[in-house]
Amino acid sequence: MNIKTELKNLKKASLNNSNLSTEKKNEILENIIFYLDNRREELLAANTIDLDLLGEVDNSKSLIKKISFDEYKINEAIKGIKSLIELPDPVDKTIFSRQLDEGLDLYRVTCPIGVIAFVFEGRPEDLIRISAMALKSGNTCVIKGRKESKNTVRILFEMMKEASEKAGILSQWLVNLEEDYDIAALLKMDDCIDLIIPQGSNDFVSNVVDNTKIPVLGRSKGVCHIYIDEEFDEKMAIDIVIDSKTQYVSVDNSLETLLVNKNVSSEFIEKLFLELDRKRLVINASPEIRKIIEADELTEEKLRTEFSDYEMNIKMVESLDDAIEHINNYGSGHTDVIISKNGSNALKFMDYVDSANVFYNCSTRFSDGLSYGFGAEVCHSTVKLHARGPVGLEGLVIYKYKLIGHGQTVEEYAKGEKNFSHKDLHRNFE
Amino acid sequence: MNIKTELKNLKKASLNNSNLSTEKKNEILENIIFYLDNRREELLAANTIDLDLLGEVDNSKSLIKKISFDEYKINEAIKGIKSLIELPDPVDKTIFSRQLDEGLDLYRVTCPIGVIAFVFEGRPEDLIRISAMALKSGNTCVIKGRKESKNTVRILFEMMKEASEKAGILSQWLVNLEEDYDIAALLKMDDCIDLIIPQGSNDFVSNVVDNTKIPVLGRSKGVCHIYIDEEFDEKMAIDIVIDSKTQYVSVDNSLETLLVNKNVSSEFIEKLFLELDRKRLVINASPEIRKIIEADELTEEKLRTEFSDYEMNIKMVESLDDAIEHINNYGSGHTDVIISKNGSNALKFMDYVDSANVFYNCSTRFSDGLSYGFGAEVCHSTVKLHARGPVGLEGLVIYKYKLIGHGQTVEEYAKGEKNFSHKDLHRNFE
Repeated sequence: MNIKTELKNLKKASLNNSNLSTEKKNEILENIIFYLDNRREELLAANTIDLDLLGEVDNSKSLIKKISFDEYKINEAIKGIKSLIELPDPVDKTIFSRQLDEGLDLYRVTCPIGVIAFVFEGRPEDLIRISAMALKSGNTCVIKGRKESKNTVRILFEMMKEASEKAGILSQWLVNLEEDYDIAALLKMDDCIDLIIPQGSNDFVSNVVDNTKIPVLGRSKGVCHIYIDEEFDEKMAIDIVIDSKTQYVSVDNSLETLLVNKNVSSEFIEKLFLELDRKRLVINASPEIRKIIEADELTEEKLRTEFSDYEMNIKMVESLDDAIEHINNYGSGHTDVIISKNGSNALKFMDYVDSANVFYNCSTRFSDGLSYGFGAEVCHSTVKLHARGPVGLEGLVIYKYKLIGHGQTVEEYAKGEKNFSHKDLHRNFE
Repeated sequence: MNIKTELKNLKKASLNNSNLSTEKKNEILENIIFYLDNRREELLAANTIDLDLLGEVDNSKSLIKKISFDEYKINEAIKGIKSLIELPDPVDKTIFSRQLDEGLDLYRVTCPIGVIAFVFEGRPEDLIRISAMALKSGNTCVIKGRKESKNTVRILFEMMKEASEKAGILSQWLVNLEEDYDIAALLKMDDCIDLIIPQGSNDFVSNVVDNTKIPVLGRSKGVCHIYIDEEFDEKMAIDIVIDSKTQYVSVDNSLETLLVNKNVSSEFIEKLFLELDRKRLVINASPEIRKIIEADELTEEKLRTEFSDYEMNIKMVESLDDAIEHINNYGSGHTDVIISKNGSNALKFMDYVDSANVFYNCSTRFSDGLSYGFGAEVCHSTVKLHARGPVGLEGLVIYKYKLIGHGQTVEEYAKGEKNFSHKDLHRNFE
């Protein structure tokens, strides 16, 4: 079957998936757990093939880490699906109902978005999590993973498809694209795909955004800041900066640029530098800071770079307002922190910094679905539409309006024979 | 000032607008009302110039109707702003708050989207409504209206800017583009504009979607359907079809295609036809229907056309499932109706038809913000992201996460020294 036909079938399948019962969806998820647990050897063998093939073309450590799928990862994937089963079904929830008039009742009800394309450079376990979340939220999905993990991914797809069929549900809701050239075809299918969620390097994501008319969720470059205000707790500041920068350098919510108020003492900056130096960080600093500590020159380019590595910037700013302006100008709208003893400065910072996550006296690294208690995270979004910040299951649904009448026409209301009552019947949490 | 500079200033102004108090925003709205009311003659004179200029290039009735701005429209605009003042402020609402751990509290708080571009072929009064809604929701906006109403629009902009300054607020939040060539420049400013809302013909909207990377809201082609099921109330069916088709033909939620179950009697179809014929409708019908009534041939193209005129299609279908498939295939996801005495068929229809508005036993024409009681409508959206159906003020806001801590680091939780509590503190309506 060619891609176009497969994706058109996906569109058709989406209406069936949107009406699956919670029990049926959880049954499929249970089946996926069963297969993951009982076909470990098959999975590990396929992953060995991927790793062996990789050896011939590329043996960079990070790629090996990305595509390897071992017992530990299988167990983690099983744990993830178990917690997904526990989460409430996000579909068919009445957000509000309103009597427009006697016998004319309006309901806003959540429903799946439809067909979601996940295009990613990620790990095989991401694929499991993401397709399981798509299923739980009643969506169908097409996934294009990293071609280097093709063999592992193929087995995972087989399992998920078998898991559906074992539950009596056609497996057409899941489409696997293996080749990179498939992406170009996919990006053009705006009549079949409702949403694209790309994950990967900034270049990878930009390439998706630039080449499609399909709405894109979750562009997530992370140029994150900490601003140290005039009055602050020194130990707290050092702890938070070290944690934000070094707890896990390769993630998008790790620290890029530390902004320091001009009234912060040289002594503190020296003390902080000693701690940073212990972590063997490359530091780029503005001229005022370089008078105090040894550091590389700070460039415009560095200020806009997501490092994902042991490197950071330090810049002195005149004031809180300066810090806010710098962040809104150079940041990526991901996660930004103020460290201060001044509560009203903190409130101003959180109101005026235009980022998905604005924090006061804690680490940048808290901005994820796990910390927030969302159960599962499909992506992190820095777009300002639909879903922002860590996106959980609710990011994969939208709503429709159902209106139940008894023969009413608009003309009766236009003429004034009838009048709207607009009485709220019920409101629920979204 | 060139467009780029103006739009960059708009981006800066957006953080100020996002933090305006409800009182200040309403004060500006009151000032707009004052100017509209007290500078009527100036407005009417400007509009006369527009209408006179139009005479030279084009005198089509519909265009005159679109650009004319008279006493009645001024009064309606004033009424609209008054009701907007009454609406609750959608900004700075805490949707939920959650204790992640002792002394580490998360808040999801609504905030404006930022910079919104309205590109439209609409009427001067749309401009007033839309910029007033942008202001009330704390956004800044750039508006490109119809060039034929340039003089009227210019005065309206002056008034709104003066209304801001009279309230002590810089008027930079509002930018007016007058020339059609400005659109191309605007569509490229994805670093300054957060959202585009286009309004106009399908070609106009497609042209916007095809030429920008900025997220687009409210593509709203309306190919609307009514399906008459096997068992139904004849009078109700006729009333609803007539209302849906003829109450106001030029709007997007008027009827395009009537689907009739094959078991509906010829007698009823004849009766319905007599009523339709009285309205001088052009009817395109499928062969089975043309055996019963006189009608033009039904083509694939007609089935996908938004008529906005006294024309409609009638097609016979085998079953409810057939009707659903037809609608999902040919419809535009706007508004679709089932007329039936069978409640379970109605529920199935509303669950399986993938449209923003799915109705049971009432007119297609109810799908708008006024009927739904939203107070004001910025657009109607058929995209399945962020906002769907009639979009009110809440469609112009998104949210950010605020996290307030006391020095917490992620490493403490990673090591297991601390554990998340994830205790919901508070949940509010969205």
